[in-house]
Amino acid sequence: MHEDQLLPAEPGVRAIARELYRHAKDLPLISPHGHVDPAILADDRPFPDPARLIVVPDHYVTRMLGSQGIPPARLGVPALDGTEVETDGRAIWRLLAEHWHLLRGTPSRLWTERVLAEVFEVPVALGPRTADEVYDAVAARLADPGFRPRALFERFNLEVLATTESPLSDLEAHAKLAADGWGGPGGRVITTFRPDDLVDLDWPGWAERVARLGAGTYAEFLTRLRERRAAFIAAGATSSDHGHASAATLALGPAEASALFDRALRGRAEAGDAERFRAHMLVEFARMSVEDGLVMQLHPGAVRNHNAALHARHGRDVGGDIPGPTEYVRALKPLLDAFGTDPRFRLVLYTLDETTFTRELAPIAGGYPAVFLGAPWWFLDSPEGLRRFREAVTETAGFYNTAGFVDDTRAFCSIPVRHDVARRVDAGFLARLVAEHRLPLDEAAETIADLAYHLPRRVFQRTVHNGVSA
Amino acid sequence: MHEDQLLPAEPGVRAIARELYRHAKDLPLISPHGHVDPAILADDRPFPDPARLIVVPDHYVTRMLGSQGIPPARLGVPALDGTEVETDGRAIWRLLAEHWHLLRGTPSRLWTERVLAEVFEVPVALGPRTADEVYDAVAARLADPGFRPRALFERFNLEVLATTESPLSDLEAHAKLAADGWGGPGGRVITTFRPDDLVDLDWPGWAERVARLGAGTYAEFLTRLRERRAAFIAAGATSSDHGHASAATLALGPAEASALFDRALRGRAEAGDAERFRAHMLVEFARMSVEDGLVMQLHPGAVRNHNAALHARHGRDVGGDIPGPTEYVRALKPLLDAFGTDPRFRLVLYTLDETTFTRELAPIAGGYPAVFLGAPWWFLDSPEGLRRFREAVTETAGFYNTAGFVDDTRAFCSIPVRHDVARRVDAGFLARLVAEHRLPLDEAAETIADLAYHLPRRVFQRTVHNGVSA
Amino acid sequence: MHEDQLLPAEPGVRAIARELYRHAKDLPLISPHGHVDPAILADDRPFPDPARLIVVPDHYVTRMLGSQGIPPARLGVPALDGTEVETDGRAIWRLLAEHWHLLRGTPSRLWTERVLAEVFEVPVALGPRTADEVYDAVAARLADPGFRPRALFERFNLEVLATTESPLSDLEAHAKLAADGWGGPGGRVITTFRPDDLVDLDWPGWAERVARLGAGTYAEFLTRLRERRAAFIAAGATSSDHGHASAATLALGPAEASALFDRALRGRAEAGDAERFRAHMLVEFARMSVEDGLVMQLHPGAVRNHNAALHARHGRDVGGDIPGPTEYVRALKPLLDAFGTDPRFRLVLYTLDETTFTRELAPIAGGYPAVFLGAPWWFLDSPEGLRRFREAVTETAGFYNTAGFVDDTRAFCSIPVRHDVARRVDAGFLARLVAEHRLPLDEAAETIADLAYHLPRRVFQRTVHNGVSA
Repeated sequence: MHEDQLLPAEPGVRAIARELYRHAKDLPLISPHGHVDPAILADDRPFPDPARLIVVPDHYVTRMLGSQGIPPARLGVPALDGTEVETDGRAIWRLLAEHWHLLRGTPSRLWTERVLAEVFEVPVALGPRTADEVYDAVAARLADPGFRPRALFERFNLEVLATTESPLSDLEAHAKLAADGWGGPGGRVITTFRPDDLVDLDWPGWAERVARLGAGTYAEFLTRLRERRAAFIAAGATSSDHGHASAATLALGPAEASALFDRALRGRAEAGDAERFRAHMLVEFARMSVEDGLVMQLHPGAVRNHNAALHARHGRDVGGDIPGPTEYVRALKPLLDAFGTDPRFRLVLYTLDETTFTRELAPIAGGYPAVFLGAPWWFLDSPEGLRRFREAVTETAGFYNTAGFVDDTRAFCSIPVRHDVARRVDAGFLARLVAEHRLPLDEAAETIADLAYHLPRRVFQRTVHNGVSA
Repeated sequence: MHEDQLLPAEPGVRAIARELYRHAKDLPLISPHGHVDPAILADDRPFPDPARLIVVPDHYVTRMLGSQGIPPARLGVPALDGTEVETDGRAIWRLLAEHWHLLRGTPSRLWTERVLAEVFEVPVALGPRTADEVYDAVAARLADPGFRPRALFERFNLEVLATTESPLSDLEAHAKLAADGWGGPGGRVITTFRPDDLVDLDWPGWAERVARLGAGTYAEFLTRLRERRAAFIAAGATSSDHGHASAATLALGPAEASALFDRALRGRAEAGDAERFRAHMLVEFARMSVEDGLVMQLHPGAVRNHNAALHARHGRDVGGDIPGPTEYVRALKPLLDAFGTDPRFRLVLYTLDETTFTRELAPIAGGYPAVFLGAPWWFLDSPEGLRRFREAVTETAGFYNTAGFVDDTRAFCSIPVRHDVARRVDAGFLARLVAEHRLPLDEAAETIADLAYHLPRRVFQRTVHNGVSA
Repeated sequence: MHEDQLLPAEPGVRAIARELYRHAKDLPLISPHGHVDPAILADDRPFPDPARLIVVPDHYVTRMLGSQGIPPARLGVPALDGTEVETDGRAIWRLLAEHWHLLRGTPSRLWTERVLAEVFEVPVALGPRTADEVYDAVAARLADPGFRPRALFERFNLEVLATTESPLSDLEAHAKLAADGWGGPGGRVITTFRPDDLVDLDWPGWAERVARLGAGTYAEFLTRLRERRAAFIAAGATSSDHGHASAATLALGPAEASALFDRALRGRAEAGDAERFRAHMLVEFARMSVEDGLVMQLHPGAVRNHNAALHARHGRDVGGDIPGPTEYVRALKPLLDAFGTDPRFRLVLYTLDETTFTRELAPIAGGYPAVFLGAPWWFLDSPEGLRRFREAVTETAGFYNTAGFVDDTRAFCSIPVRHDVARRVDAGFLARLVAEHRLPLDEAAETIADLAYHLPRRVFQRTVHNGVSA
């Protein structure tokens, strides 16, 4: 990787960007939201082969190859329907290498190249002719104890990593991490409370999951959720996360909510009940956040499992979701009416719909004390997406109503690269402000350090049960 | 301020931008739409202390500090509910200075810095350590007769400033201005006819205001409005302005409109009546514009008083509005069907939803003789917003279907800075066209002068009762 | 034209862009979708006067002049209502020249300037003072046999040009072209199957056109359409095209579809039938594409004939359409459920709503093997529009899920300029990736050649009746 990667091309601006980047590049990483399996760090076993580490679980990569006719099963993606799945890691890796040009211009290419070069120190660039050489080099590193998960965690300069679990999780991996001195409140690996599977009536098996939670009535349901939040906080959680079809919020009265819950449990949910229950539960979770101090994160707007053939064969979370238009202003009003100016509440908003950056999200974050803007998410977590985010939201929300970079990834090894990309893009954006005489250099330097480290630390790591910013 | 502020960083483009800016920077300012209180200029009294001039009335600033937990009452924003409000200007000013970093990257910071440096000639930059020094310097200037409103008006090189009044206004301040040789038709300070409070049934007190207008029937209502328009024209008005929840227009028949009006007056408005009446009245006001020559301005798409806590405590117009998605193509069709190609009609369209720039607004302005695009408004009146506007609309609407810069501000002292920012951004945009060999330098120079001065003069200052462009 | 036109201004990036452009500039032109009248090439008669070649049929130009008060009739646009229409080519040309400044910053200006300079080798720039000189120079060229349509076709380095016809067309011009060795399967001038007038119940005369097709029942309707597709394929067609009000798709059962068709034929269509029939027919046409191999193109989202006065006087397709918001994710699901992963199917999606670039279109193209993104269309076919397209879609869809440049024009002489503009913009975009060390130069060079030539050739020119990519 060239040391100036992603910095603006114009030499004067690049020189400023280099100077700014220098203030951010060595700061520890805060990873306040993501999907790394905590068992990886609890068990600290060597990673399997390169394909199973880098290709199979990365639906960005399998999706892109799939879009050009390479079925996910040939890339080792597990099938639910008995389809034969490729198991030879080297064969999978060669398929990636042969189609490497499909990833030109994408962040997946950037991340993978740098993981290979910087984490695994592979001396050649990936391409059709170097497939085996790269595979062998990575495989050799994986056999080395210095490349086990906890060793990499140290090398990555990670200060804290949050994983994401259902309230139904027993948090076993987090218990082991705590026992090893890696987890628990204030620990290096913590959890996040994500109750989507318990509030989404449209998700098959909802009633069974409610039974597993131990709730037979709406009142019990709320009580059990509060208990699980307490257990998550004991396992280090500082935030909850909510992935909803829309940003709709709604404050039902207790009797109405209870009646809806009972209907749904008896399998008699009416049209609109699922959306209303999700919307209502967001307000309830906000109320719980006021009580227990968990920062609330909201990720709305994905149309889940859009690709029906992919979903039928490979199940959820394999790259078949597509964003849809998302409205926040009217949708969030009930929640913001209740808690938007409450100093004990904090809400981090994400989006897949960048049309809302200037029109809705920046004005909301710049208008409500409780609200922060989460980093560009998913398809927008990319050099151009990160740049457009800063260009769009800063003028209305400033820098200090944003929550810092969030990697949100399943790909453990890509974490440092993703953070570094965000730091470089922020350096470029701030350098332009300096070059255009809109911000002095010293303030820009302070700002980039805040964006890289101090802001996410402050937004996500406040002491729970306290309710005011630490 | 650096002389190259906001000009593109690349030296070649910057040199062209400097040359272009030179053609615009000293042209007189046309301020065809804004919210300065005309009494300021009618009375010409010294401004109060620095905080009451620069902080208290600027909801951009109080909103941003509020979004980080500083209640508006601590910043001196008047409260309706008995909340104690800070009255010490210096204490308010210090709060601003302590939190000055929150405004990094925002236009409010840019405007304020330049007002302090250029209007008040404060020799140090504002920051936590210079709060008192800056306060004292501004306060000293305010005591100087050379810093009274009319003296500043002269120094600002303002050619004409339009304020905005309800039809219920007696236009007293404008009468005084006319008597002093400052107002009236062709004067330096003129008014704008803004009838929202008389056509918005959802605005509490509507029936009382209609009674104050002297209308008991729909026919009288239209007659009274026509009479007030004539009075506004006599006070110098060249345009009307309409701030609506949406861009909806509708041509009701007279019987239907009359029935709706009667229902509403009796407090029996039905669901949808408010939106239908606003929509219908836009078509009626367009018809009146055809008759009397007032240019019609439309500002749609704000969800008013979104922040319920702020509204309850501090009332309207204190920064609690949030934009929503706005549709123009279907919404405006009834009005455009009636008057879109009428040479006696002129409509200036604004937006808070920049997704409509290429999709709707530029094609409409590039397709209807009556329509011009207003400058980026409110959250979009910023260096990045102005740049994106030109990049988005020019290819479809050209430069000559835009109406020139509009400051739309309450902050009198910021007017010259705001216009200068727009001129600099236009210089940068045009310089890129020149540098990429898309437009010759001489035509770019002519264009920037047109955008800065000749176009707004032509669009907004045509002779009324004439109906064709002057 | 300067040799660096449209290349980035920064000297380092420009040098890279020049090098990349060199790899694309001389590649043959593939024009897989457009609206050139095939009779022009079948007859190969000299073009009429300059105004009738360049002004009268170009609704981009007549629309822009119309938006500033010059009625289309004065520009020679034929009227349906008896309005007197200017017939003097020189008078029309002078009107264009006098108002040439209105086109500053627009692609129409860029295209026209280059057509004059490069195709017609006019030695002076157009402007108010050179109107007659330019007119005479072009007129002189038009009298020269070297400027007849087929001669220009050769000089333009066109490899293949697709026109667009209704299924009701007898394809007479294409038969003549085939007889002359210019048309037919694999020929240089081919047709495209565009059945909008047969599936849009809202289009006056629908039942008569169905009768002309020879269909009395829904089953016959499908059969006749299949027969016409076969005839189009025999005339060289490799694709169909569908211009719909929305992207809605719907899979009605045969009985339901048949009942709807019968209702409509009897003049008893119900509310919603028109939208449902169009949506249903898209799924049927996709099914036919799977059978016969035609690539399916979808152009949704124009609100047709928005300008009622223009439509009443001059009819369809004279610049009175305006884009509206367009939704794809939910709209396309029925079609993608049926054929989105079918290797025999290929769908090229266009848009007038660039808010869908990152939110919907790139994820869909990057998620479904059948889908490719068409080039920016209509108001977005411009330097800034093309640049934003690459910046927005590449990170999610890569380069290889896009279909290459499509000129989509009626203006035969502008075809080479339009392609050249796209190649220059792509060179600039790729040069930035190289300069920011995001893509090596050799891969960028390969990519620009793919975008300019190899990709459109592969996407649009696959062997029909085969169904897999050639």
